[in-house]
Amino acid sequence: MKTRKNGMLHDQRFFDPDPAIRRIAVDLYEQVKDLPIVSPHGHVDPAILAENTPFPDPAELIIIPDHYVFRMLYSRGIPLEALGIPTRDGSPVEEDRRNIWQLFADHYYLFAGTPTGAWLSHVFGEVFGIDETLNSANGMAVYDSIRQQLQTPAFLPRALFDRFTIEVLTTTDGASDTLEQHEAIAASGWGGRVIPCFRPDSVVNITAPGWHEEIAALSRISGIEIDSYASFIEAIENRRAFFKSRGAVSTDQGVFTPYTEKIQPARANAIFQRALSGSAGEEDAALFTANMLMEMARMSVEDGLVMQIHPGSFRNHNEYVFRKFGPDKGCDIPVMTEYTANLRALLNAYGNDPRLKLIVFTLDESTYSRELAPLAGHYPALKLGPAWWFHDSIQGMTRFREMVTETAGIYNTVGFTDDTRAFASIPARHDLSRRVDANYLAGLTARHSIGMDDARRMIRALAYDLVKEGYNLQ
Amino acid sequence: MKTRKNGMLHDQRFFDPDPAIRRIAVDLYEQVKDLPIVSPHGHVDPAILAENTPFPDPAELIIIPDHYVFRMLYSRGIPLEALGIPTRDGSPVEEDRRNIWQLFADHYYLFAGTPTGAWLSHVFGEVFGIDETLNSANGMAVYDSIRQQLQTPAFLPRALFDRFTIEVLTTTDGASDTLEQHEAIAASGWGGRVIPCFRPDSVVNITAPGWHEEIAALSRISGIEIDSYASFIEAIENRRAFFKSRGAVSTDQGVFTPYTEKIQPARANAIFQRALSGSAGEEDAALFTANMLMEMARMSVEDGLVMQIHPGSFRNHNEYVFRKFGPDKGCDIPVMTEYTANLRALLNAYGNDPRLKLIVFTLDESTYSRELAPLAGHYPALKLGPAWWFHDSIQGMTRFREMVTETAGIYNTVGFTDDTRAFASIPARHDLSRRVDANYLAGLTARHSIGMDDARRMIRALAYDLVKEGYNLQ
Amino acid sequence: MKTRKNGMLHDQRFFDPDPAIRRIAVDLYEQVKDLPIVSPHGHVDPAILAENTPFPDPAELIIIPDHYVFRMLYSRGIPLEALGIPTRDGSPVEEDRRNIWQLFADHYYLFAGTPTGAWLSHVFGEVFGIDETLNSANGMAVYDSIRQQLQTPAFLPRALFDRFTIEVLTTTDGASDTLEQHEAIAASGWGGRVIPCFRPDSVVNITAPGWHEEIAALSRISGIEIDSYASFIEAIENRRAFFKSRGAVSTDQGVFTPYTEKIQPARANAIFQRALSGSAGEEDAALFTANMLMEMARMSVEDGLVMQIHPGSFRNHNEYVFRKFGPDKGCDIPVMTEYTANLRALLNAYGNDPRLKLIVFTLDESTYSRELAPLAGHYPALKLGPAWWFHDSIQGMTRFREMVTETAGIYNTVGFTDDTRAFASIPARHDLSRRVDANYLAGLTARHSIGMDDARRMIRALAYDLVKEGYNLQ
Repeated sequence: MKTRKNGMLHDQRFFDPDPAIRRIAVDLYEQVKDLPIVSPHGHVDPAILAENTPFPDPAELIIIPDHYVFRMLYSRGIPLEALGIPTRDGSPVEEDRRNIWQLFADHYYLFAGTPTGAWLSHVFGEVFGIDETLNSANGMAVYDSIRQQLQTPAFLPRALFDRFTIEVLTTTDGASDTLEQHEAIAASGWGGRVIPCFRPDSVVNITAPGWHEEIAALSRISGIEIDSYASFIEAIENRRAFFKSRGAVSTDQGVFTPYTEKIQPARANAIFQRALSGSAGEEDAALFTANMLMEMARMSVEDGLVMQIHPGSFRNHNEYVFRKFGPDKGCDIPVMTEYTANLRALLNAYGNDPRLKLIVFTLDESTYSRELAPLAGHYPALKLGPAWWFHDSIQGMTRFREMVTETAGIYNTVGFTDDTRAFASIPARHDLSRRVDANYLAGLTARHSIGMDDARRMIRALAYDLVKEGYNLQ
Repeated sequence: MKTRKNGMLHDQRFFDPDPAIRRIAVDLYEQVKDLPIVSPHGHVDPAILAENTPFPDPAELIIIPDHYVFRMLYSRGIPLEALGIPTRDGSPVEEDRRNIWQLFADHYYLFAGTPTGAWLSHVFGEVFGIDETLNSANGMAVYDSIRQQLQTPAFLPRALFDRFTIEVLTTTDGASDTLEQHEAIAASGWGGRVIPCFRPDSVVNITAPGWHEEIAALSRISGIEIDSYASFIEAIENRRAFFKSRGAVSTDQGVFTPYTEKIQPARANAIFQRALSGSAGEEDAALFTANMLMEMARMSVEDGLVMQIHPGSFRNHNEYVFRKFGPDKGCDIPVMTEYTANLRALLNAYGNDPRLKLIVFTLDESTYSRELAPLAGHYPALKLGPAWWFHDSIQGMTRFREMVTETAGIYNTVGFTDDTRAFASIPARHDLSRRVDANYLAGLTARHSIGMDDARRMIRALAYDLVKEGYNLQ
Repeated sequence: MKTRKNGMLHDQRFFDPDPAIRRIAVDLYEQVKDLPIVSPHGHVDPAILAENTPFPDPAELIIIPDHYVFRMLYSRGIPLEALGIPTRDGSPVEEDRRNIWQLFADHYYLFAGTPTGAWLSHVFGEVFGIDETLNSANGMAVYDSIRQQLQTPAFLPRALFDRFTIEVLTTTDGASDTLEQHEAIAASGWGGRVIPCFRPDSVVNITAPGWHEEIAALSRISGIEIDSYASFIEAIENRRAFFKSRGAVSTDQGVFTPYTEKIQPARANAIFQRALSGSAGEEDAALFTANMLMEMARMSVEDGLVMQIHPGSFRNHNEYVFRKFGPDKGCDIPVMTEYTANLRALLNAYGNDPRLKLIVFTLDESTYSRELAPLAGHYPALKLGPAWWFHDSIQGMTRFREMVTETAGIYNTVGFTDDTRAFASIPARHDLSRRVDANYLAGLTARHSIGMDDARRMIRALAYDLVKEGYNLQ
């Protein structure tokens, strides 16, 4: 386990081989590589940091929670059961974590050239000191090495959090979440800053299965009897205030389309009553969501929480996988998304208001230069979230910079978002982003588009300053 | 004010740093950098050249007329009032041009990596001999330097026109324009060629506010009583002939979609009568425009004027800005655009006719390789306009070449269009385009896709020959 | 005819000039350049290989069958008649092949920077040993050289097939094709493997002109009286079995949209009866096709034929050209295409089934990263066909790799498809693809994204292994 094969973790990885670009990229990267990590949006379970117990084993740490990893294996014919992905009905799946890991090792070559491959290499090399590329032959040795390290104090979650130099870690939490894990962390005396983000999707989607239970839970936790649109809004406001009191600086909404429309309270209430009685249809749901985006923007103007929108994912496209294994199993597929017309109502109502910060993400890269950069390059309230999900990759992040910067500049963007469920991958993702940005700016510098002092200011902005400004984290 | 900081105006700026590419790019660029500028489409006010009085001050020259500049500042929270943008109702705005300039200087870093930044650097460096990057500290010194130069004869508009080696400058003029500025220029004895382009949008958009006044003006100037579709068409033909007699070689239409459909005159007249009586709806308007595109193509076949279409902009997206400051204030936002089905009627009617030259632009880059290059690589009449507006940038022009050339070649394109309102930026824009094209061809040459003799023929075509051929300017 | 001008056929053509990338690209390309050609999809007429008579002349070989070539000439105003393209009504066209060739030579410069230019250079240089770039001056000498060579035994179709080291050549054949040319080839004792592909478009498109004749022919050849949906399906199954018995490994469908929907047999039969009686409408046709995609997938699960879908082409966009010259004349134009929602029914029914291989192509590059890579990176049955038609080009193939690989890896793709009608261009197209892939992987390697051993495994997969696996050709 010592020789570095395959260029794994080469110091200058992901930089253009042209010497003029690479020299500058290394210089810029060196400037920011050790800056603290600010993670303004993600899906790490706060219980990990509240409980601070050892991660049970390598498969549990690296494969089972990470749909980026197991969807690729599934696409090549490996059943999810064989990877230990738990079933909804409790039907049996592979229990032997070594078997799961061996299967992963046998197919590790599938990740060559993918960002998941880049992140995994970083986790293996930088977090666990493993210098070989995973393969069938060394799979069990790697497993044993990681497993052993996970049992040591240096690999407890909080120790890793500190070692990763995470300044802020944001989780994503439902409207009715008690945030007790966040409270436990705060009460523990440990200094790590772990803050919630308010995501009301499950109470906003009035036709989703389980909505009535979600509304009941929201009534319970808010202490507000939700029997009308007015009391629903009141409960939402109540929860936003609670989240804010627990450190939240932002909200998030996952929507199918970013369509926005303000409707009259009476009409909203009529829809809400149909939802309560179980007779709301898809048109009702779409209009209700469109109106709720307006309401959430209004509330953000009032309470100062940064508003995020993540549209354009067709959730649970594969019904078989969804029924058997549940959501977030790698079968959410992007769709074409329209922003110019859809966001107009919201931007006309609040987009000129300096009190609003609206951060928009997309899964449709054709909107970068066509719609999002022109919108962000005009409306004061609008900022662009970074390349997201499938596009959080070397080429994807590069395309984002190339298609956005010339119209919106970098100062209408908000740095990097790791959006991960895989705790150990956080530094890998931020490191990759810093490398890609350094390389992008080095290209501009080597072509004399910008000067070296511009580049130095910009790399720091992209790696650190903009995310703090964009999410009110100063 | 002497050292060149920040790589500002490096001789080899915007070229790939790879030595093989750069060497060829420099060679090709040298070949065309001093060719005359042919500007076939733009928005410079002809009065500037008719009157030939000094530009009043740097803010009036560089900031106030240029929505590329002030929209970026607005997006970062600077009120348009503070930038001296005049209000419709005359409510007060900043009057002190030095304050405006200082604000601009304070935020000049926002333009790093944008084409506006590249153009401004060129204007500062090449037009005004300023070698420093603008910033808060040197803002007033730069202001004074420019202001002083503007008062000298060498900086009068016609002197700059000559110094810029502009061979032809095309303005954009409404259907009822008297073209008296163009006549004044022609009568002045000065040799500069400044020609109009016929843009009938305001009389074609039958539901636009002010349409009745526009029709009245058209009646007046054409001497044709417009009370029917037939007399409307007659007036349009009358004005085209007038424009042609004043040197025009082209028409232009800005449309929301490029939908084309020929309708019977009786049906067109019924719509026109509803428009006259104020009862036309949006469907009427869309169909009327679709039919007028057909009519304009027919007229072009008959009178030889080159036809241009600029679709896909959602005009005045921000109602607040539009109401307070008017149109062209940086809040026109692109939308998804479809050409294959929409242009079919027009192309089937006239696309095989060698008498028509139809130049199509787009703000939707996803159509370059999918629709526009295949259409231009087949129909004899169709040519592609260059990367436009938000895409008139280093990466944007490069993407245009990369996505169009492999299917349509370069000979179904028409060189460069600056499309600018900012007179002083004309050479900057053409220079940037020539650099990007030289770099693109150098890449092909260094990869042995084309030979050096191909590259020499092609760079000249892109910089000069194709625009003259495409716009009948030989 | 000896000096290599214009970098024509430089050994390292199409590789990045950066020395670090080029060195690796050359290395990887050397590894695969002599691997046999597996051509799993194309449009070569099998009669060429069944009859094995000399190609009549250079124009007949290179210009007349290749719409990639003559559409470019047509776009610049050259009538198709002057290029010898046969008319439907037998009205006269240029008969003198030397005149046609001279016209082609005069305009050969139009292809600079296009893939057609790259393929033609390869055909001239590698197949016919011509070292000069074609132009007006040398046109007749080149014509004579090629014509003379075509008369020699070494240039008979089978000799070229062997010289091209074609391991498998797949043709595309209608549902009622007798496959007698394939039988003749098999019976001839010559060892070349030429296999059919089952393409039922003409019997599936129920509103297409000539559909009744197609159904009559299908009845005749299958021996099944087609008077109902059930008997239609039976006839299709019958023909698939026949094609399979003649070596077919795949089917193909060209559809306007990839919309899929399973309908009940009774409803399908009602539509079919309307089609038989000539009263089916466009909605019927769309639904019938959507259902037939489901049926074809079911049949593939049962009989193991690989299923291909080629959507998104607006066929015969130019009515004048279609009426006068027929289909496949360079006027099929791509349209925006949607896969996520459209393919859902099919993927939910069969996408998790290991018995299905579904290969999807696109003409809409915006779907690569947004829809197709995420779908292929999840569903076991789905593979992506390579960059197709207008996108089978240097930049187009590079964009495909860059936009697909990071999400789907390379192992959910199926190597290269030449899709050509021009027999002599087959090695040119495969060579270009191997060069582009070598260059792509060299870029990843030089940036330390992958190691050299990864790159070696991947280049072989892209050039040879994946197409054999994807099309069951092992």
